[in-house]
Amino acid sequence: MTTAAAESAQTTIVPSYVLDGWWTPSSEAAGAAGALAEVRDASTGELLAAVSTEGLDLGAVVRHGRSVGQAGLGALTIHERALKLKELAQFLNGHRNELYELSYKTGATKLDSMVDVDGGIGVLFTFGSKGRRELPNSHVIVEGPMEVLSRDGSFVGEHIYSRIPGVAVQINAFNFPVWGMLEKLAPAFVAGVPTIVKPATPTGYVTEAVVRLMIDSGILPAGSLQLISGSARTLLDELDYRDMVSFTGSASTANLLKSHPNVVHGGVRFTSETDSLNAAILGPDGVPGTPEFDAFVRSVVTEMTVKAGQKCTAIRRTIVPAGIVDDVVAAIGARVAEKVVIGDPRAEGVTMGALASVGQLADVRDAVESLVAAGGRIAWGSLDAPEVVTAGGAKAVVSDGAFMSPVVLAWDDVRAAALHGTEAFGPVSSVVGYSSIEEAIELAALGAGSLVATVCTNDPATAQALTLGIASHHGRVLVLNREDARTSTGHGSPVPHLVHGGPGRAGGGEELGGIRSVKHHMQRTAIQGSPNMLTAVTGVWHKGADRHLADPADPSAHPFRKSLAELRVGDAVRSELRQVALEDITAFANETGDRFYAHTNEEAAAANPFFPGIVAHGYLLVSWAAGLFVSPEPGPVLANYGLENLRFLTPVPAGDSIRVTLTAKQITPRVTDEYGEVCWDAVIENQNDEIVATYDVLTLVAKEWPA
Amino acid sequence: MTTAAAESAQTTIVPSYVLDGWWTPSSEAAGAAGALAEVRDASTGELLAAVSTEGLDLGAVVRHGRSVGQAGLGALTIHERALKLKELAQFLNGHRNELYELSYKTGATKLDSMVDVDGGIGVLFTFGSKGRRELPNSHVIVEGPMEVLSRDGSFVGEHIYSRIPGVAVQINAFNFPVWGMLEKLAPAFVAGVPTIVKPATPTGYVTEAVVRLMIDSGILPAGSLQLISGSARTLLDELDYRDMVSFTGSASTANLLKSHPNVVHGGVRFTSETDSLNAAILGPDGVPGTPEFDAFVRSVVTEMTVKAGQKCTAIRRTIVPAGIVDDVVAAIGARVAEKVVIGDPRAEGVTMGALASVGQLADVRDAVESLVAAGGRIAWGSLDAPEVVTAGGAKAVVSDGAFMSPVVLAWDDVRAAALHGTEAFGPVSSVVGYSSIEEAIELAALGAGSLVATVCTNDPATAQALTLGIASHHGRVLVLNREDARTSTGHGSPVPHLVHGGPGRAGGGEELGGIRSVKHHMQRTAIQGSPNMLTAVTGVWHKGADRHLADPADPSAHPFRKSLAELRVGDAVRSELRQVALEDITAFANETGDRFYAHTNEEAAAANPFFPGIVAHGYLLVSWAAGLFVSPEPGPVLANYGLENLRFLTPVPAGDSIRVTLTAKQITPRVTDEYGEVCWDAVIENQNDEIVATYDVLTLVAKEWPA
Repeated sequence: MTTAAAESAQTTIVPSYVLDGWWTPSSEAAGAAGALAEVRDASTGELLAAVSTEGLDLGAVVRHGRSVGQAGLGALTIHERALKLKELAQFLNGHRNELYELSYKTGATKLDSMVDVDGGIGVLFTFGSKGRRELPNSHVIVEGPMEVLSRDGSFVGEHIYSRIPGVAVQINAFNFPVWGMLEKLAPAFVAGVPTIVKPATPTGYVTEAVVRLMIDSGILPAGSLQLISGSARTLLDELDYRDMVSFTGSASTANLLKSHPNVVHGGVRFTSETDSLNAAILGPDGVPGTPEFDAFVRSVVTEMTVKAGQKCTAIRRTIVPAGIVDDVVAAIGARVAEKVVIGDPRAEGVTMGALASVGQLADVRDAVESLVAAGGRIAWGSLDAPEVVTAGGAKAVVSDGAFMSPVVLAWDDVRAAALHGTEAFGPVSSVVGYSSIEEAIELAALGAGSLVATVCTNDPATAQALTLGIASHHGRVLVLNREDARTSTGHGSPVPHLVHGGPGRAGGGEELGGIRSVKHHMQRTAIQGSPNMLTAVTGVWHKGADRHLADPADPSAHPFRKSLAELRVGDAVRSELRQVALEDITAFANETGDRFYAHTNEEAAAANPFFPGIVAHGYLLVSWAAGLFVSPEPGPVLANYGLENLRFLTPVPAGDSIRVTLTAKQITPRVTDEYGEVCWDAVIENQNDEIVATYDVLTLVAKEWPA
Repeated sequence: MTTAAAESAQTTIVPSYVLDGWWTPSSEAAGAAGALAEVRDASTGELLAAVSTEGLDLGAVVRHGRSVGQAGLGALTIHERALKLKELAQFLNGHRNELYELSYKTGATKLDSMVDVDGGIGVLFTFGSKGRRELPNSHVIVEGPMEVLSRDGSFVGEHIYSRIPGVAVQINAFNFPVWGMLEKLAPAFVAGVPTIVKPATPTGYVTEAVVRLMIDSGILPAGSLQLISGSARTLLDELDYRDMVSFTGSASTANLLKSHPNVVHGGVRFTSETDSLNAAILGPDGVPGTPEFDAFVRSVVTEMTVKAGQKCTAIRRTIVPAGIVDDVVAAIGARVAEKVVIGDPRAEGVTMGALASVGQLADVRDAVESLVAAGGRIAWGSLDAPEVVTAGGAKAVVSDGAFMSPVVLAWDDVRAAALHGTEAFGPVSSVVGYSSIEEAIELAALGAGSLVATVCTNDPATAQALTLGIASHHGRVLVLNREDARTSTGHGSPVPHLVHGGPGRAGGGEELGGIRSVKHHMQRTAIQGSPNMLTAVTGVWHKGADRHLADPADPSAHPFRKSLAELRVGDAVRSELRQVALEDITAFANETGDRFYAHTNEEAAAANPFFPGIVAHGYLLVSWAAGLFVSPEPGPVLANYGLENLRFLTPVPAGDSIRVTLTAKQITPRVTDEYGEVCWDAVIENQNDEIVATYDVLTLVAKEWPA
């Protein structure tokens, strides 16, 4: 350590970004024994930099996030935050090449880096879009329908999400220094929660480079992002129930963090995503010669070799029909031999780089040896240092690079504990045979909770049995067959639209999943009160709340004459009654062609359990209602683009009359357009004030409209 | 202990119900030192029974739930399970009086017991109804929309919920022996997860009585409910990531359980709901003489005295404008003096019973004394043993009953740590003053996470500021004003429709909340694959999956001619094209009255950013589509009861043609009716195969129909 420390003293220290400024330890602090952790090139062993948080006031970092960060993000609406993510994604897109270049030092190939860099930018784009399309342009999200809690409707309840009042501490793994940060930052940012990111030491310099770009872009509000380069030390001591920790990494570190008193007793929200022994199951129909067999083998080899198998989602257990274990092993071996070129990722033609460090390499070799000791047999590959392509293009066995050959293990005892419990975090997978669907499910479940499994079959019944059989043990299941083999994003790739995380050994957490992950950064609170008060709290009009009815004698008072600048929730219009004659129903039937017997045949209609006799078409009612509520001249209401939640509640026989009441319910101005969405509550009643139909009318309304 | 043990040997031992049979310890086991825990009448101290789990094989109990219980519940669909809850509720409704009678021994008044017994039965009714109205009649719940993950739509993803593969261990508090069990059992049961319930010792005999009724009813499947009467001992040692623990009780016990290695490292799902220092905030407008002031005082007194204040939701901190602290204290005191009669709940006129045990009484007195030592002042009431009404009707100070007078504390230091951190779990509340809305929010948040808060104001802006200001620190916020003062279910009452649980000190868990709590017992899994495979896995047709198009030449092949017995998802019909003429649009405008300029004025329509000129009404399109897909003669399709997710995507100018394709998407037979719901995917396209509109058509379809 002394020699290393001396060497490090010459090297760059990767800075942290805290309290809205760059920070490195003082030279005294950096000089202390054990203060610095070294970072080396994965392929050459060259010393790149060091990291240290010695002397950093972590309490101040947390307080800065809670105060300045919360204030900065809180000044923006959800849509404004999402738009910033889009701008950030566009900005980073212009800097990809420098990030690929830097990433070579981590042992990653260009393809690996694209997964990391482009994948991370893709997450920003997805949340930039989903945040604006699927969430309201406000600070609070109403979730689910209103529940009426008193007979007279004066007491109601519902749920809202509001952001947690603290910070999101994001502790990431070494394998994806860019994606790992951005996939956690994006949902926290949309939710309005400031991030404190702590990347893993071996590749944190790549994260630092991205943070530097993001800060330089000037897009982020003050305090919304802080970076800790180096040990998190006592960071968890500073957290309480207002805060959240999202951890990705080893199960052992996760367990250590989960045991922290502030997590166990202090209410810190903790979610973890740890590597797991993910399975891929080949269905009984996936015999050699089928597209499924080929797709399966391709997928297994991809997962073994991308990032040199250093993915928490990699396939560790390849579960195949017992009769074709040897075929699968041979096919994997043949494909590896054909496709995989190990070496320095900077060299031409290399398809698999180094592990992240020689320390990682030693760990993986140890794990394989313990698997062999437990009954595994190396059926393909070897633990010997492989011949690799060096940066210069020469072939050599190198001692400073963390290179390893892919290894396939075979097992006689398909239930061996080590097979289902010991992970080699590198290019290593075990192949085991099953003799029935039930056994395949049982074997997959022996992983005791996994992030992801592949089910490879072209038989629908097999797909259902296997998928539902293993679903509750998994965070994600990919059904692979000839239909999606070419278009699938792959077993190992979490997508921002779907949750990432699994039960048990996989950490028990959830990340991503579109707006689900935004909500992970929010507190769900039940709100009870009168409809007027729920309207006041949420800004969304609630059934039963006061309406501001337009004067029917004054066409200019119609709410459709109001732009978003003038319109308020609760603004409403109520029509006159219009009577429905049998001739109207008959005419509508003839013109639309909808001659369903309930509208055309009195006797048959009366025999139907739901109708008194001939009744008006539901489509007639909503069409007439539009005629009753519309304001025909050009105005701020630009279009009716849809309808939601339409329910026909009381049939309307000939002779009945209907009227409609339309009330502005939710107003969502778009941040990038000159208009926004207005959702109108529509109620059709009959002459006895019985509710005939209820629905939501969706319109686009201009922000401004000349008087 | 020796005397007590000797006495206990004469008493009944409350049995456990495990492995589908009743169980009590052997006499040897029961005779061991410390084996028995005593249960006494709260008002008289009379020894009622003892409990013990000495010698009970808890591993066998867990295995029985995971095997027999999972199998029994798994044989039922979600709707069938929900219907059983309804039957159970109806059955228990007929046995309420015996439960009230038994509950008197716990110190509960008749009103207290109605909260417990009727409230518990109400939860069963709610889940019996919601499970059938809001969830599919299947084993798996699809959550959220399908996400298209490849450009060509051949690779898609979505989320499903499937039940966890283990048991739900429910550890309950002493204060609600009936509701406490049923509010956890109901969602677990609907999800399909077997329950192992462990009630608190002092009142577990009431739970046992309910379990006995439920078992005797014959309604429950084998293994779906087990009862542990007595210590849970090593139960957590038996659990793993497949299982779930729902705990209600003290923060200290919660912390003990949360620290168990199987929770921290083993992936056992753990949710806890602990008592918290809930606040009630009176808004600046709630001055004496207003309806809000009166409603606020009534609510505080109710929460102090119902169950003798032994509710995790009780109001411990009464936060009011600084100028009216004395008025509030005086009003609380006056109402207590007027309304509260302490005594044996079996006596006439008693409105507040005993605490659960003399041990509890000692704890509460200790807590009040420590609050006084920390700066609290007893502003109303006293710690002296109160004069109470005994069972016989006499007034006396009794030594064996756990009786206590309500106590109101006042504080000079409104930020005293004890005020916001020390709970007296009895008829005790503190009153403190605030000088600004911001300070009121800050004081409420000093509770460091609470189950519930009341915000009492009639001012909409104050309601919004206070509610959103404190929401992220709370699981529930009740806005109290003159509109809901009489109809509110009250600050202290969780309702099955809304989540119960809060962050931080309140335990960080969630229960109830309608189907949210069903999902708490399920694993959310992302499923990826081709539309065909997602259809196979979920039983719901997915856009892009194969359709079985009816032969247009054969009217009997129309899917509307198929009953639920014959209909399959994917059954579809596609219409011919029908051309829309300008005259059709004009006629529709005149008949419906919808003369919006986009349908009537070419020039104005063309000036609209979304239309090429005059276009057909959206309502015309869906009306015509119904005419194109309908099968007019009487048949199994009984009614079209609604429409969902209608979006108009491409305008249809005069001269264009439309056709519609209708595909059976989801089939939900009702368990109690001769019909069920069928949701049809509808797509309107134009002559260029561009999508004009998409929506879901909701119909009722008969289960059988004569050929």
